[in-house]
Amino acid sequence: MNVLIVFAHPEPASFSAALKDEAVATLVAAGHAVTVSDLYAMGWNPALGPGEFAHDRADPGFLDLSREQEHAHRRDSHAADVRAEQAKVAAADLVLFHFPVWWFGMPAMLKGWVDRVFSRGFAYSAGRKYERGHFKGKRAMLCISTGTASTLYEPDGVDGDLLHVLWPIHNGMLAYTGFTVLPPFVAWMPGRVDAGERASYLAAYRERLSELDNVEPLFFHPWDDYDETQRLKPGVVARSGVQWNPER
Amino acid sequence: MNVLIVFAHPEPASFSAALKDEAVATLVAAGHAVTVSDLYAMGWNPALGPGEFAHDRADPGFLDLSREQEHAHRRDSHAADVRAEQAKVAAADLVLFHFPVWWFGMPAMLKGWVDRVFSRGFAYSAGRKYERGHFKGKRAMLCISTGTASTLYEPDGVDGDLLHVLWPIHNGMLAYTGFTVLPPFVAWMPGRVDAGERASYLAAYRERLSELDNVEPLFFHPWDDYDETQRLKPGVVARSGVQWNPER
Repeated sequence: MNVLIVFAHPEPASFSAALKDEAVATLVAAGHAVTVSDLYAMGWNPALGPGEFAHDRADPGFLDLSREQEHAHRRDSHAADVRAEQAKVAAADLVLFHFPVWWFGMPAMLKGWVDRVFSRGFAYSAGRKYERGHFKGKRAMLCISTGTASTLYEPDGVDGDLLHVLWPIHNGMLAYTGFTVLPPFVAWMPGRVDAGERASYLAAYRERLSELDNVEPLFFHPWDDYDETQRLKPGVVARSGVQWNPER
Repeated sequence: MNVLIVFAHPEPASFSAALKDEAVATLVAAGHAVTVSDLYAMGWNPALGPGEFAHDRADPGFLDLSREQEHAHRRDSHAADVRAEQAKVAAADLVLFHFPVWWFGMPAMLKGWVDRVFSRGFAYSAGRKYERGHFKGKRAMLCISTGTASTLYEPDGVDGDLLHVLWPIHNGMLAYTGFTVLPPFVAWMPGRVDAGERASYLAAYRERLSELDNVEPLFFHPWDDYDETQRLKPGVVARSGVQWNPER
């Protein structure tokens, strides 16, 4: 397998970095080819904007991002940093997103990687999303750490069900672009537990990575369950991956 | 009222910018004081990282963000751009977040404004979140535009219920820090409708802004509904603002 790890944490000695290093070691030992995009170390620019298309604008007078992204994709004129990341995604069978949960989501660094790299034309286009998405056949998984306890992320927890919190990522970025989405690996409050528990998280992650083929992906309704307005057909009960099962 | 508008769109002639200009004009005409943080125009740096604390680290050897944020807050040593934004939030009675929905959430520019400005010590601290949050007494509202139709955001739509999609923002950033959260104002697909419909959106937004005191906030369970593990007490039915009512 070709594996791409997209990693966003500013501290190289953080537990997030340890999880990333564990993934690299485990996957390489298993014979996979691993590429890491360490966004802070790369000095990634997370702000999608006009700089993206500076040398070849479809319309220099008005920045229509969808239009400029399609134009840049067609002419292979995206900024060099975007093209480099797109090549990594294109080559990957599995993409792992490693990040600490900040404000119920990705750090801006990583959100801006998605904003820029998952451009129209490359990651989605008219009629090609979800089950018909560009990344059909690839798998994706989040490896995250939290600042609070798991109880807060249970269905009746104050932060909300974990999969509810992650819905914009799982459904909106990954299922949307065609990925098969594996359930997330979560290290709860690694900053507040002792070294033994942190070692247990690393061991559990090693195990998860060694059995990816046996992990049941999150469920998302197939395209045929939706009508022409992209709402579920009458009689179809909504059960896309929104309820976290701690036993999984 | 003191109103802070945090605006994130790279094109000054975009419809997002038109909504922001409409808000400024309407609120000023009504006698309010309005401050705008136009993140792209300001060249905002969205990447929370070591630069934040460059001249006064609690621990120069290891970047623990929570610890450094608390340290910087206590000593008023945050980076100048963060302190300036925090002063605007502190002075605001109402904060409006104006942005296009990118990948089911905020553009990285705006996410990075939250990552950096809503720092530990300033926006939350031990025991002070949700109903006891630092921003208790302030109101917040999203003004967003989408790339797809409203049907996709209905409870059975493929993108997921609008309030489900916005949960990480409404619950995780706004209710979490103590804001009273007003239902969002949404312009559906302004890039794909004609000038007349866009004018209708602007008129509807003017009206919304003129009647904010009559708008019922989103519901979030009061603190007393939760037990000591921060899960809902037995018998309390979960009904925090997760189901969008298009009639609202």
